[in-house]
Amino acid sequence: MMGTQTIEPQLHAAREASFTLVSQGNETRKALLFSLEGLLKAHASQIAEENQKDLARMAPDHPMRDRLTLDQARIEALAASVGDVARLPDPSGQVLMEGTLENGLNIQKVSAPLGVVGVIYEARPNVTIDVAALCLRSGNAAVLRGGSDADFTNRILVSLIHKALEENKLPADLVQLLPTDRVFVKEMLTADRYLDIIIPRGSAGLIQFVREHATVPTIETGAGVCHTYVHSSADLDQAAAIAVNAKTSRPSVCNALDTLVVDAAIAETFLPKILPGMAAYEVEIRADEAAYSHIEKAGYAFLKKATEDDFGQEFLSYKCSVKVVQGYQEALTHIRRYSSRHSEAIVAEDEKISERFLQEIDAAAVYANASTRFTDGGVFGLGAEIGISTQKLHARGPFALEKLVTEKWVLRGAGQIR
Amino acid sequence: MMGTQTIEPQLHAAREASFTLVSQGNETRKALLFSLEGLLKAHASQIAEENQKDLARMAPDHPMRDRLTLDQARIEALAASVGDVARLPDPSGQVLMEGTLENGLNIQKVSAPLGVVGVIYEARPNVTIDVAALCLRSGNAAVLRGGSDADFTNRILVSLIHKALEENKLPADLVQLLPTDRVFVKEMLTADRYLDIIIPRGSAGLIQFVREHATVPTIETGAGVCHTYVHSSADLDQAAAIAVNAKTSRPSVCNALDTLVVDAAIAETFLPKILPGMAAYEVEIRADEAAYSHIEKAGYAFLKKATEDDFGQEFLSYKCSVKVVQGYQEALTHIRRYSSRHSEAIVAEDEKISERFLQEIDAAAVYANASTRFTDGGVFGLGAEIGISTQKLHARGPFALEKLVTEKWVLRGAGQIR
Repeated sequence: MMGTQTIEPQLHAAREASFTLVSQGNETRKALLFSLEGLLKAHASQIAEENQKDLARMAPDHPMRDRLTLDQARIEALAASVGDVARLPDPSGQVLMEGTLENGLNIQKVSAPLGVVGVIYEARPNVTIDVAALCLRSGNAAVLRGGSDADFTNRILVSLIHKALEENKLPADLVQLLPTDRVFVKEMLTADRYLDIIIPRGSAGLIQFVREHATVPTIETGAGVCHTYVHSSADLDQAAAIAVNAKTSRPSVCNALDTLVVDAAIAETFLPKILPGMAAYEVEIRADEAAYSHIEKAGYAFLKKATEDDFGQEFLSYKCSVKVVQGYQEALTHIRRYSSRHSEAIVAEDEKISERFLQEIDAAAVYANASTRFTDGGVFGLGAEIGISTQKLHARGPFALEKLVTEKWVLRGAGQIR
Repeated sequence: MMGTQTIEPQLHAAREASFTLVSQGNETRKALLFSLEGLLKAHASQIAEENQKDLARMAPDHPMRDRLTLDQARIEALAASVGDVARLPDPSGQVLMEGTLENGLNIQKVSAPLGVVGVIYEARPNVTIDVAALCLRSGNAAVLRGGSDADFTNRILVSLIHKALEENKLPADLVQLLPTDRVFVKEMLTADRYLDIIIPRGSAGLIQFVREHATVPTIETGAGVCHTYVHSSADLDQAAAIAVNAKTSRPSVCNALDTLVVDAAIAETFLPKILPGMAAYEVEIRADEAAYSHIEKAGYAFLKKATEDDFGQEFLSYKCSVKVVQGYQEALTHIRRYSSRHSEAIVAEDEKISERFLQEIDAAAVYANASTRFTDGGVFGLGAEIGISTQKLHARGPFALEKLVTEKWVLRGAGQIR
């Protein structure tokens, strides 16, 4: 891509190609995805070879190495997930509302493809396939800006997508892989003429950059600062199991526990119950003053005093903070202040309190008596997701196939005038 | 508001107040709006007096004068519209989806208030009441930044809103009227911590400014560059009636006709049919070469040659442009190029062609054989609208009460862990 001064030709080509997909039926789009599934399986060893070239350029102890890796087993799973997306119901062309106005004008609200979807992501080559599959299934063109670390892998994956498109007599321009030069990110973020939406997937820094520079509408798939609040009425063994699960089952993901909020009335009894489970993963507990004294008494080895920075922080690792509160109102205030509005939980047997929490806490997913780890498109029954939206417009929580559409009002008349 | 350095206290107060509304039921919010309806009626003469102060500051021939005016009749109508909003169904707290996961976890998708809604608008004091009514009805706080030309009127209106809130034991902070100093607009646009959404209503310049500076998510209620395409199969008398209605029934609004696109095969027969209707309003027709010769032959008095600028322009006055095309494909290409994706129409008896148009044209509202003038929340059965969204996310077309909510996933368990 040396010497490229602008990505406009690619963006323009994606827009033009998107028009051709609008008039293609559901069956063509399904067939396209099954072709892609087959091509990925047939070319698994070539993909793994290209992936090795990317891995060879990355330091052996780089934290992104696992996410960059595409071995045969992962390629098989990725191919199968394309088949799963093919089998999901078509989100476009659905009649959402229908009626007849007094003057006889027929009115429908229908779902329609967004048009051209841009995605900016880091060195996770599976995103290339996931996003392309979801976009094409729903009738959209995709403009992909992947991480440079995954460039060899992304190129072979996109060449297979193009092959699948050609096999189904669709334009290869429907999926564009942008050059990874940083200068083009800004051009992408302001390409209102060509892109209908941009979804940034990645670090808080990337998302902040996008928020500041984008004029194209964006969906933020942001950080999860997740709390679990243990109310004085909780079943304390259940609460301990939930807290330990939320922290330790997969700490690197956005729905993992960051801060445990505990009612003072039960803190002394409750906190020791989480320690065996946390100790098994050597979870570093950063405790406020009250919690510290209770945990210290129990002789926990991985204890630290919390600082102000430990609240409102997404740890993404075997670390969590603990805050002791004087009841529901203080818990609510604390969570409202520090929540990133992703996933929040209460553990309480008092149903009046848990129902208040479910209503009063403003987050994409709110839980009573369960682990926050369930926030996921697949678990929620939506299929593969593009990310977890932490904003309130259009899509909130798992952003899956069903939301890759817009609405369109269609009116059929016989000469009506106003 | 002299000496105010920041609007943060007002934004913070709105956010805090919004929490109180979440736990208020539908009946409280309805009662609140009926109180406001009554207060507006009871204070109609005081409102009109304050409005006179604003009008006195505005030049007698100012084009915004009509929009600024609130006389007794308009205040009555405004009050009645608040009552109408009260009677609309509550958009929040609706269960949109419900199920049980295999592990027994109950999952619901429910609608919930957005939180705090910011609106930036110009000297139209009715917007103050419309927006406050729609926001409060749906459980949201409202932060209003109105035009300085309407400041006397806006202040009395907001004082009545505050009175209605107090009468219903709700915090006055739920509705904030910001100072009109320009410097605070930027602060508002980047107040992600306090505002969940900003809706700009006004000129293209305002909307462009918002697009460039906002980090808070926005819904653009943008310009309408609306086309009507007369296909060769059209009933030409019907087509002429539709075109004349779309242009002349209310040219100052966004769903009015801007460009008439006509098939070459019928241009010579069709164009003379629109001239009597257009002449009645002295509509200036800016015609491309082919159309010009046909219209000139008919001796039309208000004819001009179109320049490139006449296509893609929102006239908002008794002016339109005419483009002659060689059939459907050229019409499609022209409209795709110049449309602002607001409202687009085809007139055709060939149903295969009109159905293609309805599918292939990407706009908030697409019409077959009817005037584009119907694009309106009230006409579509949605009640009062905040504006017509020309973007694709969240709300498209009339942005009414039903869209002043977000979604929230609510999960109720009995100790489920992953």
